Amino acid sequence: MNAFTQYSAKELPRIEQCLRERTSGLSPYVLPTVLHTIEAGGKRLRPLLTILTARALGYSGDGAYPLACSVELLHAATLLHDDILDKAGIRRGKPTAHTLYGTDHTILAGDVLLALANAIVAEYGDPALTACLSQALLATATGEILEIAHIRDVSLTLGKYLEIITGKTACLIQAACQSGALLAGAAPQVVRAACDFGLNLGIAFQLVDDVLDYTSPQEVSGKPKGSDIREGKLTLPLIFLLENMPGRDKETFTKAFKDNALSPELLDSILGTVVRDGHATRARDMAAQYLDKAKQSLAALPEAPETILLAQALEGMANREK
Amino acid sequence: MNAFTQYSAKELPRIEQCLRERTSGLSPYVLPTVLHTIEAGGKRLRPLLTILTARALGYSGDGAYPLACSVELLHAATLLHDDILDKAGIRRGKPTAHTLYGTDHTILAGDVLLALANAIVAEYGDPALTACLSQALLATATGEILEIAHIRDVSLTLGKYLEIITGKTACLIQAACQSGALLAGAAPQVVRAACDFGLNLGIAFQLVDDVLDYTSPQEVSGKPKGSDIREGKLTLPLIFLLENMPGRDKETFTKAFKDNALSPELLDSILGTVVRDGHATRARDMAAQYLDKAKQSLAALPEAPETILLAQALEGMANREK
Repeated sequence: MNAFTQYSAKELPRIEQCLRERTSGLSPYVLPTVLHTIEAGGKRLRPLLTILTARALGYSGDGAYPLACSVELLHAATLLHDDILDKAGIRRGKPTAHTLYGTDHTILAGDVLLALANAIVAEYGDPALTACLSQALLATATGEILEIAHIRDVSLTLGKYLEIITGKTACLIQAACQSGALLAGAAPQVVRAACDFGLNLGIAFQLVDDVLDYTSPQEVSGKPKGSDIREGKLTLPLIFLLENMPGRDKETFTKAFKDNALSPELLDSILGTVVRDGHATRARDMAAQYLDKAKQSLAALPEAPETILLAQALEGMANREK
Repeated sequence: MNAFTQYSAKELPRIEQCLRERTSGLSPYVLPTVLHTIEAGGKRLRPLLTILTARALGYSGDGAYPLACSVELLHAATLLHDDILDKAGIRRGKPTAHTLYGTDHTILAGDVLLALANAIVAEYGDPALTACLSQALLATATGEILEIAHIRDVSLTLGKYLEIITGKTACLIQAACQSGALLAGAAPQVVRAACDFGLNLGIAFQLVDDVLDYTSPQEVSGKPKGSDIREGKLTLPLIFLLENMPGRDKETFTKAFKDNALSPELLDSILGTVVRDGHATRARDMAAQYLDKAKQSLAALPEAPETILLAQALEGMANREK
């Protein structure tokens, strides 16, 4: 357990408490859906980043918690909507909200959380904070639309793939760090560095997530292996594999992938080949490069204990197994 | 054409232009869905109320337009999500967005508009404005959840029905007026009066909308008559009808309504009886009472030309046919 994990263990109860307090006033008609999502756990990476960034930049008040929670609520809202889009049945080992409460309830519960997140941010009286989170939501939804537009598109380029994951994942992680820096009243170039840190960490985070979909068994990840490819999502390991696939195999795969007709045997074979031929490792290597960039951004932050913790948050991320 | 209609005709081009400008920067993947909704028309009641309220309270700047547009964008976002929930195929005489662009796209396009509306409000640097619109979105989504919870519930009370329409419709119309008053820097009691005006106008507006669903032919309303009852929504005309329905008829209706098995004949008979027995008129009378309350709230506003226009906006609303 490194110091970041220790720090997380200390802060998590306060984050959880704040999440419970802030959602407790919601209508009893929406609360079960909201609590189902919020209490399903998760790493709380985003709120931890908000708190750590604020602390690293000299903010010591309790005001970091509601702000951190608003970032997490925004994240939870996008997950609620995202699981509907993906028709995902399982997240973090539990049934997704829309399978339990229905699509209609879940769309509206997502809207309620988006509104709640904004209402909390508005309490800070700092329009830059509201703008930061609104832009992040805009980028997240736009990234997801881009992803949908390229479903079952075997010609997806690496550049477009990076654009998708930057939008759908990294921009909100960037906003988690940016909002912490804004709360601390940091100078513009320091806020910029916090953004760069979050953006590169966010890209790395999603790259590894996409690898885990190929390598991590359901007992560990909480969702079935190969979900992305079944949903028609082309991610980095598959982009690498396709670059190296013999023409005949590629034709067979392309047809089955486009027609949403991948046999369990072909799917198993793809999952196996991605690992055996090192494409999962290559994708993790690319994640490591982004983590390096994230680490470099920290040079612009003061040498506070929390800056060291932010660096430690990067450690092991390229090799994480869940 | 009364003075309010003349004023609307003058302001509408600027509102439309602002809506186009503010959405033009959106991703080309989401823009068609957004434009489909925004350019489908509509009365632009909410942005007109924002502008008029601000002007009535002494604000003369161009800053009223983006704020008014953010209210309209929030409204458009809720319509996008709402049409998915209602499985509505037609709105304002045109196919709904989700039937053309798919549910996934439409959920995300709604999220994009919510984010855009917030980002625009954040530009004003006034946290009270952000709070106002966030609370309105929270109320709107909560009202819709309440409505869903009471679908096909023949025991829905008048009180609960009013709670539903206040949440799903009136709170955003209230926010339209409140935001105009906040922009003008009005005193708290004047902001309160603007809120009361919007709230009562909003309740009346939805009451009449619910009547029109029973009385207005598709050529006029742009959607099929009897949509609410088919979707299992109990609205005021039906609440009145059920209060007066003989026991045997009520049993037959209740069973068919609960089972989503209303025959076209029974539906036609219900629509006919609501009009013939005066329940549509009673519902319009109740709307007129709320419009009276709205008018009384205007007494707290200065005697500006725009205050007179706000009063004229109420005229004829109880008897509107579309």
